[in-house]
Amino acid sequence: MQPVLAELLTIGDEILYGQIVDTNSQWMSVALAEAGIRVVRKTSVGDQEEEILKALNDAEERADIVLITGGLGPTNDDLTKPCLVKYFNTRLIINEEALEEVTAFFKSRGRELTELNRQQAALPANCVKITNTMGTAPGMWFHERGKVFVSMPGVPHEMKRMMTDLVIPKLQQTFALPVIYHKIIRTVGIGESFLAEKIKPWESRLPTHIKLAYLPSLGEVKLRLTGTGKSKETLEIETDQLARELDPLVGEYIYGYGEDPLPVVLGRTLRDRHFTLSIAESCTGGYLSHLITSVPGSSEYFLGSMVPYAYEIKKWQLGVKPEVLEKHGAVSEPTIIEMANIVRAKFNTDIGVATSGIAGPGGATPEKPVGLVWIAYSDKHKTVTRKLQLSNDRMINIRMASMAVLNLIRLNLPPA
Amino acid sequence: MQPVLAELLTIGDEILYGQIVDTNSQWMSVALAEAGIRVVRKTSVGDQEEEILKALNDAEERADIVLITGGLGPTNDDLTKPCLVKYFNTRLIINEEALEEVTAFFKSRGRELTELNRQQAALPANCVKITNTMGTAPGMWFHERGKVFVSMPGVPHEMKRMMTDLVIPKLQQTFALPVIYHKIIRTVGIGESFLAEKIKPWESRLPTHIKLAYLPSLGEVKLRLTGTGKSKETLEIETDQLARELDPLVGEYIYGYGEDPLPVVLGRTLRDRHFTLSIAESCTGGYLSHLITSVPGSSEYFLGSMVPYAYEIKKWQLGVKPEVLEKHGAVSEPTIIEMANIVRAKFNTDIGVATSGIAGPGGATPEKPVGLVWIAYSDKHKTVTRKLQLSNDRMINIRMASMAVLNLIRLNLPPA
Repeated sequence: MQPVLAELLTIGDEILYGQIVDTNSQWMSVALAEAGIRVVRKTSVGDQEEEILKALNDAEERADIVLITGGLGPTNDDLTKPCLVKYFNTRLIINEEALEEVTAFFKSRGRELTELNRQQAALPANCVKITNTMGTAPGMWFHERGKVFVSMPGVPHEMKRMMTDLVIPKLQQTFALPVIYHKIIRTVGIGESFLAEKIKPWESRLPTHIKLAYLPSLGEVKLRLTGTGKSKETLEIETDQLARELDPLVGEYIYGYGEDPLPVVLGRTLRDRHFTLSIAESCTGGYLSHLITSVPGSSEYFLGSMVPYAYEIKKWQLGVKPEVLEKHGAVSEPTIIEMANIVRAKFNTDIGVATSGIAGPGGATPEKPVGLVWIAYSDKHKTVTRKLQLSNDRMINIRMASMAVLNLIRLNLPPA
Repeated sequence: MQPVLAELLTIGDEILYGQIVDTNSQWMSVALAEAGIRVVRKTSVGDQEEEILKALNDAEERADIVLITGGLGPTNDDLTKPCLVKYFNTRLIINEEALEEVTAFFKSRGRELTELNRQQAALPANCVKITNTMGTAPGMWFHERGKVFVSMPGVPHEMKRMMTDLVIPKLQQTFALPVIYHKIIRTVGIGESFLAEKIKPWESRLPTHIKLAYLPSLGEVKLRLTGTGKSKETLEIETDQLARELDPLVGEYIYGYGEDPLPVVLGRTLRDRHFTLSIAESCTGGYLSHLITSVPGSSEYFLGSMVPYAYEIKKWQLGVKPEVLEKHGAVSEPTIIEMANIVRAKFNTDIGVATSGIAGPGGATPEKPVGLVWIAYSDKHKTVTRKLQLSNDRMINIRMASMAVLNLIRLNLPPA
């Protein structure tokens, strides 16, 4: 089967001037790839008629599908619609359904429809209207000379909703594209290359219609299985089975499936099992608490933190024994054990965790280099520590150490 | 004077597949605009010879300058160099200086030069080499048929260094561009539209060769003055004078000039004036401490925090009087005053600050809606509070409240 080719055309001076980063076209590339459509070119032009017409013409020559974003606002400097009228040699007519939609949109917000907004319902005569459920400018679908042109607003959430709900399904139908199904497997506590080494035998057995991608980010690696076929149900069963086969190989690193990141997954476990948590964080400086409290409803399991940043505060406020601190220093296993146990006792929680390290760039000694971090987990049954040697970058160290603590909690929660 | 026009050409499948977001071209657009060069088009093509040659040809027709990034790696799928050879009908020759540079680069990292890497020093015969101080692939400068073509690596930090140090100055020289000078004025605690209203008379008096841009982000607004002229010194004097004229209008909101964000500027003040700081943060959940500790060297003035997230922890651990909590609730002026005073006393710091609010989406009551946040500042002379009504978005509330506390500290520090 010949691949179906798409070209992305972005219209607007704000992109050429660098006033905004074009995140739309990356999102669209991924969404199209996931639907089995190959992007062959991306072009950005300014709000100038000649440039837009030339770009439309070039794109039509190269691709089966031309996806246009931007330039659909109600003001005079938005030229996409007049250019499309000219390009297809047609005229604007008021689309009654679009007019009803834009009227309803304004009514729901208690605002009057202006003449400028009324003009947003005027569409080229040869297009099919695409409803914009998130805004006022409708999308437009053209099927001319065997090619499809789609014009969408540049506002990211309007474009994304339109693509997901209407444009991609209509493209799949028009070009009889295969069904594509994705399964995300989320791992933490293992680097990309080690993970790849461990799952090599499994990877080599993947059927040709199911592809694997590694998606690493700070402190975690996602695996994405992408299946191509005729039935979503079959692909779902196949990828679920493949994911289960990873358990004996790397099961201890898998913390979840799908979209939820580690603080959300861990928070759900803590809430469901009625565990409470407290934190004594030194080198992570509040970031670990922030990760936990960025999750709505985290007050159900997170009771509070101490950030004993200064040496004296570790003694006076947290209550680490002076002899332990003096003998071993703030960045040491005996101190981190004290910190986790004390915060758990003081805050009266089921679990206490702690961090202490050299985030950098300053503060290092010959024995304690930048990137050295001790972390600890404590509950009523046990205390567990880990020594990490991270990087030279302060922010990376703060983030990696915080992720490592979340993973330490995950791995050491008492059995249900 | 005719504007000098540039086209950006990005080469690489990874951008078309959406595997990476193209942040390079936004950065380049800004850098070029700042140098007085207008970007007229951006194009991304994949690693395919025919596509690359076509794109080069199109770009040459439209622009005076063609800036190419990507496709310079040492492997076979990197096609930029062979395409440039073909496009200019020339051949590759080893550039001795480039060979020395790449050899030295590998030597400094204790690695052997492979034949593949040696080939990175082979450059088209008609180009001027551009040194890559951050990596192994040299840049290339072509001046043909009155147009300039520059090929650079796609790795962002390599490209940026090359652009800033070598390419932009060389373009300014080649095209006799005017001198462009920027001055950034950083404000906090006032919204964009209020700021614009207050500085309207000043803005209307700006000379035509100095332009103003508003750059708002969460909790702050930057003003950028861009002057165009013949002498950097003159522009510097002019923009400094204009910035001083803002003082009587909005001086209380201006916290600094240039690149340093608020946590850095505030941290410098605290350190220079030997003030110490402690924090009791509830609704901001660690984020305020994280902002402070994201600055290297913050341990010189930041001693530590309490995050008394749960109601009981505010009583037991921080020591807020039960009768205050019970009568007024955790989100109230009397409680926030207690929190700031207590943390200052307990941590024995010059300054104590506190936050308590409804970050959302849960936790609201009819009297205390989502987005209500109390903040307080305390030193030995005074205690100051502010009541904020922020948004419906949890993360926005956490960030805005944290920025508001940094500003409260800035405004209330005791006189020197």
